[in-house]
Amino acid sequence: MENKFKSPLCGIIPPLVTPLKDNETLDIESLERLIEHLIAGGVHGLFILGTTGEEQSLSYRVRKQMIEETCRINQGRLPVLACITDTSIIESINLANIAADCGASGVVSAPPYYFATGQPELAQFYEELVPQLPLPVFLYNMPSHVKVSFAPSTIHRIAQNQQVVGFKDSSANAVYFQSVMHTMKDRPDFAMLVGPEEITGECVLLGGHGGINGGANMFPELYVGMYNAAKAGNLPEVLRLQQYIMQISSSIYTVGQHGSSYLKGLKCALSILGVINDDFVASPFYKFHAPEREKIRQALERLPIENGKLIL
Amino acid sequence: MENKFKSPLCGIIPPLVTPLKDNETLDIESLERLIEHLIAGGVHGLFILGTTGEEQSLSYRVRKQMIEETCRINQGRLPVLACITDTSIIESINLANIAADCGASGVVSAPPYYFATGQPELAQFYEELVPQLPLPVFLYNMPSHVKVSFAPSTIHRIAQNQQVVGFKDSSANAVYFQSVMHTMKDRPDFAMLVGPEEITGECVLLGGHGGINGGANMFPELYVGMYNAAKAGNLPEVLRLQQYIMQISSSIYTVGQHGSSYLKGLKCALSILGVINDDFVASPFYKFHAPEREKIRQALERLPIENGKLIL
Amino acid sequence: MENKFKSPLCGIIPPLVTPLKDNETLDIESLERLIEHLIAGGVHGLFILGTTGEEQSLSYRVRKQMIEETCRINQGRLPVLACITDTSIIESINLANIAADCGASGVVSAPPYYFATGQPELAQFYEELVPQLPLPVFLYNMPSHVKVSFAPSTIHRIAQNQQVVGFKDSSANAVYFQSVMHTMKDRPDFAMLVGPEEITGECVLLGGHGGINGGANMFPELYVGMYNAAKAGNLPEVLRLQQYIMQISSSIYTVGQHGSSYLKGLKCALSILGVINDDFVASPFYKFHAPEREKIRQALERLPIENGKLIL
Amino acid sequence: MENKFKSPLCGIIPPLVTPLKDNETLDIESLERLIEHLIAGGVHGLFILGTTGEEQSLSYRVRKQMIEETCRINQGRLPVLACITDTSIIESINLANIAADCGASGVVSAPPYYFATGQPELAQFYEELVPQLPLPVFLYNMPSHVKVSFAPSTIHRIAQNQQVVGFKDSSANAVYFQSVMHTMKDRPDFAMLVGPEEITGECVLLGGHGGINGGANMFPELYVGMYNAAKAGNLPEVLRLQQYIMQISSSIYTVGQHGSSYLKGLKCALSILGVINDDFVASPFYKFHAPEREKIRQALERLPIENGKLIL
Repeated sequence: MENKFKSPLCGIIPPLVTPLKDNETLDIESLERLIEHLIAGGVHGLFILGTTGEEQSLSYRVRKQMIEETCRINQGRLPVLACITDTSIIESINLANIAADCGASGVVSAPPYYFATGQPELAQFYEELVPQLPLPVFLYNMPSHVKVSFAPSTIHRIAQNQQVVGFKDSSANAVYFQSVMHTMKDRPDFAMLVGPEEITGECVLLGGHGGINGGANMFPELYVGMYNAAKAGNLPEVLRLQQYIMQISSSIYTVGQHGSSYLKGLKCALSILGVINDDFVASPFYKFHAPEREKIRQALERLPIENGKLIL
Repeated sequence: MENKFKSPLCGIIPPLVTPLKDNETLDIESLERLIEHLIAGGVHGLFILGTTGEEQSLSYRVRKQMIEETCRINQGRLPVLACITDTSIIESINLANIAADCGASGVVSAPPYYFATGQPELAQFYEELVPQLPLPVFLYNMPSHVKVSFAPSTIHRIAQNQQVVGFKDSSANAVYFQSVMHTMKDRPDFAMLVGPEEITGECVLLGGHGGINGGANMFPELYVGMYNAAKAGNLPEVLRLQQYIMQISSSIYTVGQHGSSYLKGLKCALSILGVINDDFVASPFYKFHAPEREKIRQALERLPIENGKLIL
Repeated sequence: MENKFKSPLCGIIPPLVTPLKDNETLDIESLERLIEHLIAGGVHGLFILGTTGEEQSLSYRVRKQMIEETCRINQGRLPVLACITDTSIIESINLANIAADCGASGVVSAPPYYFATGQPELAQFYEELVPQLPLPVFLYNMPSHVKVSFAPSTIHRIAQNQQVVGFKDSSANAVYFQSVMHTMKDRPDFAMLVGPEEITGECVLLGGHGGINGGANMFPELYVGMYNAAKAGNLPEVLRLQQYIMQISSSIYTVGQHGSSYLKGLKCALSILGVINDDFVASPFYKFHAPEREKIRQALERLPIENGKLIL
Repeated sequence: MENKFKSPLCGIIPPLVTPLKDNETLDIESLERLIEHLIAGGVHGLFILGTTGEEQSLSYRVRKQMIEETCRINQGRLPVLACITDTSIIESINLANIAADCGASGVVSAPPYYFATGQPELAQFYEELVPQLPLPVFLYNMPSHVKVSFAPSTIHRIAQNQQVVGFKDSSANAVYFQSVMHTMKDRPDFAMLVGPEEITGECVLLGGHGGINGGANMFPELYVGMYNAAKAGNLPEVLRLQQYIMQISSSIYTVGQHGSSYLKGLKCALSILGVINDDFVASPFYKFHAPEREKIRQALERLPIENGKLIL
């Protein structure tokens, strides 16, 4: 199969939020605005239906629609990666086929997340799954949600199949990220991408290829700027931009309780910024009420925003 | 909505394994044999698509088929409970509607298992879901797979809606089970059912209503016997039958490593006993190889089985 | 070495709270009153320096004093078990020697709780420790605090040494308790004791030997009554007493947040009941303030107490 | 109290292994050799009785001796930090007083590790403990062993007391490390030190002050080199040294199973390198047998070592 992107995939590939009107209705107008906002912001790819995209909370009809609409709006301007994480191998393959039909460039897969697998079972699962997928594959490590972490040696085993072209790590464990990088050092084409935006700078400084950073939905320039600064080894700029990234992380993502603060805060901020119309969050979560929304508004006001853009 | 069973639902309601030929193909002949085996064994209901039934590993097409075929074969002889656990509320409702259309008696729901919810979010989720379901609802506690446990007060809050008619607990935490029983003592119609067969005896002795016990796929008479003995307060019989139950638990379910030993061992034993044709286990798991199968065979030989039945 | 109790040890062996004036000062007067209260209540042994006794929070000087004073006050009336759980094998042996010198009947040991050991390391540790101890040994399973659970096969291996005479399980996992019982069925002298009082009834009904129940500090008669009823197979009495046990569990132990609610609530109730003078809880915990104390008082008022005794 | 080091404390402060002859006997000759090896290697401080130093496995007598001997051998050449982590506040204070009497420069404290505290309890505990300590205090985050992680806001609250001068994070969670740095940015004198050597480079590049890296016991020059390179912003050198650090991490620390591989591997390598006489590991762990020792020897042979030094 053809690789529609230069390997390894590099840069900032935002995990798009899925703009919704309700549990069943994709807000296409907002999706169009979001994608144009991201492309204008200089991002290097579009990653849809990840954790930030609430894949698991959406019906399959909406998942399919999200793939179709994203590819339609994108018109081939950027590589599109579609997350196909599922507990059912059949449904994973179905989603991957839809993605290929729509012109996506790759698929992303976290381990099955109901049954926790042992490492040999995990390797065997991917050895069965990958050859049935029509696109390049990125593995996705998300142990807090999935309960299982890829052992570095398991990644190495799965990636014997050259169709496996990269890895996204959302564990926040930087020792682990370094261990996977070290294990995969014989594969210079293998993309090492990090989820949490708070550590994209350091991961890229140490040789990582980029970030799948949720905050880029709001301020793509900031995270693209961080990627460029880190890639260029411009440490003063890395430190300067890191302050904004941490200010956002510690204010926008920490309102409310529970693990859902990040997602609710991000969608709420996007709706205040006018990027999406409504901050509806799919069940089992619920968007913020007025008091939390007010806190998000205040957090945004403390940022140097003009015309919806962060003035760096 | 009408309750097709006397409340509270009592007895042994086995969580049926899903007989498969491969990841996409239900083995209907084996399903017919299994259901007749269970009904002949005196069980009080059929619970399909639970953890033992590998719901999450199956495609939606096979889930739908499993509901349809079970209801067709059952012909109304026993209450059928269909598990509708999903990460997407829309897909949960879809499955429940299929179950109602096919004549199932109730649905069973564990919390969404990708995002971990806080207790208020969990209560709110069920307050949104339950009214959209066409059948009586059993809540299902499965923290090892779902990451979230229902707080007793959350169950009490959700069960303000009388459509919620029971609870299945697979936590193995007997203090927790007692706490839920105590919290729900104002609802004598609320069924308290326990997952692990190793503690069905003690839970029923203390006032629980029955067990959703995987071992009943193999030897329904044993678990029905335990239920009857415990309900009658026949302690010597409880202790006698408990020995068999523990022998099975400690031999059939502990071959191999990883959390999948139970499922692989159960399906392997069922195939040796001739109840199902093949012990195919859906991805991400894989059936036992010859050495493990031999251990299961030996474990079965140490049990007093004649013509596929345990001679109690 | 001589066994000062008939094997297996049976009945209710309360885990004594440690009455304190401050972090460094044992309240000996309260300890005397507590022990007389327990002996009058019919308990079958005294278990000191367990989790309820705050062993780990106490200085070694106070631990030593607690052993000495308990043995002095007890005057040989009941078997005394001293907990010697430590992260240092040397300090464990030191405590055991003190216990033997003071006339204790046995020692209790949970695994080292800083480094988490694998099962072979755990077995090897006890094979090294036990022969250096001067008294019969009970193993103590407390995974929530210790991070490690004894595999049933590890218990069986350790108990090849006949000096190991019993097991206390505080996991609340009743499947696990049954598994250990089944694994140890070739050792009829091996005491199977359960920590959580909410399940003493069912554990004894199923063949367990008794409970190490914190609530017995307050109401020894209740838990002794439960033990006797369960041992006699008197199910109606078990169910009647279980109501009181659950009422206490759900009211006294659930005030406040965090895992410390049980300990704070128990000591607070004991001070209101006049069994101990002050409910000082050692660092890192702190006794309840007035509002929580008032809730405990109200919870006690809802119980049928006369002259400090529960009227059963 | 006087600060014997310039704030914030910077550089590589190795967590010394504790050389032992058996569970009760400190190997003073090896300790002398180790300390001279470290000082010759250019480290910036000595951190004793941490997790790598097996504090919890040692008797109090040996802990005291380790403090005394280290301070004696050091003769004031480097700041000495003594870990006083304990479950008993009294024993923590005792150790701190010994450290002060011997001339140590500071103490390090992880939360009590038997009872898991909530965040308010944790803050209150340190507000009680710190004023009773005679030396500057570093907080120590070690959630895998301690079960509790300091919330960034808890650190900020505790550090209102200026006696609290730094933080060591062994969580490996780089997002967390960044969050604490951001929360503490109003305290430029507050040392931010990282435990895992695999991420010292990136943490220092992003503004951290240094590393408490176990590997520095073996090859102090390597980690000092990494610190200097990162502090100077010399990215090519950081990347070059990172290769050695990862080679060590992935070969020396991963022999054997269980969480003890790191400690066993480190002590084994030190004994092969001749820095310590014997690789005795205190109970509940045990040193490697011959096959594992051979693997460590081979791993060392793949490193460019001459005369016990890594040729960088």
